[in-house]
Amino acid sequence: MPTFPRSYPMSGGDDRHSYINNSSYQIAAINSVGDKTRQCIIEKLDLPLNSDLGSFRIADYGCSIGPNTFHVVQSIIDAVKFKQLKDKNEKSLMPLEFQVFFNDQPNNDFNTLFRTQPPSSELEYFSAGVPGSFHGQVLPRNTIHIGHTSYTTHWLSNVPEHVDDKNSPAWNKNYIQCNNSIEEVTKSYKVQFTKDMKLFLEARAEEIVPGGLMIVLGQCLPDGVSLFKTYQGILVDTIGDCLMDMAKLGLTSEEKIGLFTIPAYFPQFSELKTEIEKNRSFTIETMESVHHPLEDIPLSNHFLIAMFRAILSTIIKEHFGEDVIDELFDRVAKKLGKYPINFKECEKNVTYFILLKRNE
Amino acid sequence: MPTFPRSYPMSGGDDRHSYINNSSYQIAAINSVGDKTRQCIIEKLDLPLNSDLGSFRIADYGCSIGPNTFHVVQSIIDAVKFKQLKDKNEKSLMPLEFQVFFNDQPNNDFNTLFRTQPPSSELEYFSAGVPGSFHGQVLPRNTIHIGHTSYTTHWLSNVPEHVDDKNSPAWNKNYIQCNNSIEEVTKSYKVQFTKDMKLFLEARAEEIVPGGLMIVLGQCLPDGVSLFKTYQGILVDTIGDCLMDMAKLGLTSEEKIGLFTIPAYFPQFSELKTEIEKNRSFTIETMESVHHPLEDIPLSNHFLIAMFRAILSTIIKEHFGEDVIDELFDRVAKKLGKYPINFKECEKNVTYFILLKRNE
Repeated sequence: MPTFPRSYPMSGGDDRHSYINNSSYQIAAINSVGDKTRQCIIEKLDLPLNSDLGSFRIADYGCSIGPNTFHVVQSIIDAVKFKQLKDKNEKSLMPLEFQVFFNDQPNNDFNTLFRTQPPSSELEYFSAGVPGSFHGQVLPRNTIHIGHTSYTTHWLSNVPEHVDDKNSPAWNKNYIQCNNSIEEVTKSYKVQFTKDMKLFLEARAEEIVPGGLMIVLGQCLPDGVSLFKTYQGILVDTIGDCLMDMAKLGLTSEEKIGLFTIPAYFPQFSELKTEIEKNRSFTIETMESVHHPLEDIPLSNHFLIAMFRAILSTIIKEHFGEDVIDELFDRVAKKLGKYPINFKECEKNVTYFILLKRNE
Repeated sequence: MPTFPRSYPMSGGDDRHSYINNSSYQIAAINSVGDKTRQCIIEKLDLPLNSDLGSFRIADYGCSIGPNTFHVVQSIIDAVKFKQLKDKNEKSLMPLEFQVFFNDQPNNDFNTLFRTQPPSSELEYFSAGVPGSFHGQVLPRNTIHIGHTSYTTHWLSNVPEHVDDKNSPAWNKNYIQCNNSIEEVTKSYKVQFTKDMKLFLEARAEEIVPGGLMIVLGQCLPDGVSLFKTYQGILVDTIGDCLMDMAKLGLTSEEKIGLFTIPAYFPQFSELKTEIEKNRSFTIETMESVHHPLEDIPLSNHFLIAMFRAILSTIIKEHFGEDVIDELFDRVAKKLGKYPINFKECEKNVTYFILLKRNE
């Protein structure tokens, strides 16, 4: 049954700091692979699209609170309907009924998710919210025809061992993320990531029917690159620096910072591939880096800060208290104003697109 | 696809006025039919309880926010598992996986529902929240093996026509419910109830597999009895009287009260039976009035007021504003303190238990 580890959802509600209003970076990636997703479904989905199937079931794992998830789901449905028309043969076809499972941690803001769904007149599917960690099975065996996840698999089920232990060589010191500057820290994160990726894929292998597909979209590091060299890594390190500045003023403490490290790990591209290949229930049909349309232009500080605030404020609040947030992100804005990120010289995370097919 | 009419969920959250803390009357009824439910499932469920079935899917329609719904669902699962053991034959049995669909209006507090689920170690099923009005289809065709609903089908999808129209003979005047004291009002409510019951049953007939069951638990009037004569009716009429008292003091207005009427209708027992019999997809296996254990003793004013406050405060707030609630229920308490309900002389609503089987 679903497990409920500690989890830190994206910022709920719909105010100006919410994920709902600060997730255009993610939707840009989703849009940019729209054609690819469609093509993959048409070519690779190996299921009879007729009434033998019962309803057609889609799951979005780690859906957060939209609107991205609604967008993805609709594009998957459009592709399946197109394929159904294309494959049509003499066998009379009943229109497929679609059921969509929106999965996320139990403390995700499902109320907002449901309230912000497209109006019922436009909704082509029956929706269901599924609370539970995707590191375990959250849906019955053999029930999902297409699974999807985007920007989720870097989240770990737990803080890796020893990285918050001052007496360990794997202590992450005052860094708030695994930025690859301390080898022992990277190793510890890697162990946890390997475990979690295994659990993720094993759970999906149970849930997805033979012939069904799993689409994974996300970010990793280019081979040979450390996170502290990418602008994404630099930005989070800057948040850490600002926390340290606040500690010096007594607004938080160095000790607290030493105990805090974000449970997210960005593997390198080939490292990620190796982890996925270990699972024998899926075949990798496609795994490639894709062009992210927002990477062509230097992103404004305002945009970057709003995005990372929506992603990280829940976990920062949990550790440092609600009242540090405004001050912290004001300081980040000031620091980046003074020392702008040099987009020309720094590295970038890779956006990847993976299509897995569940073996027969 | 699911429709989202106006709806008034039970009080969310988990404070002292919440439904979660004021639904012991409903759970007492659910408990009192526990053995009957179990027996019905064992005798009447006409499905192969083996791996041919895929997962076993249960839906609770109008689930609100627990704990009642968790309790019901677990007792259904226990009965199915017992039946599976009992029916066991040579065919090797894989343990069934259960999936439970918790359905309620999209503005139901699903966050609280998910947060208050039993711990994962105790959970024997995969849960999913399904937002949408049960007056329409909310799940795909032929996917549910056992449906359940309790204390829900008296809620109408809309306020009936003309009952809030001062110029109509069906105007409900200053009554806030259909208490059966004005014939034209009762007629208008009846029209809406007939429509809604039809929609409810037609939707369930789509969703429930042939051989599957639908359990309906709720309250209606004894044949020949008007709601204003039952203590439940008297209590809501008292709330209406207190609103009128407040209007006299300028705390609300008579005009507002004239426009307000609760979209709930309690049919008489035989009237309810007639409506159900109209649907030819189901066979009524059992329809009977059952003994409600809390009806043996006069219920305390405190208990009754807390229960009706949890049920009605959302709709009252919506119409009269948040700030009337405390004052209103204080007044109800005072009025009932001064003029207690005479439980010996008044009538009572009937608690009914219905088992429907989906025809092949």
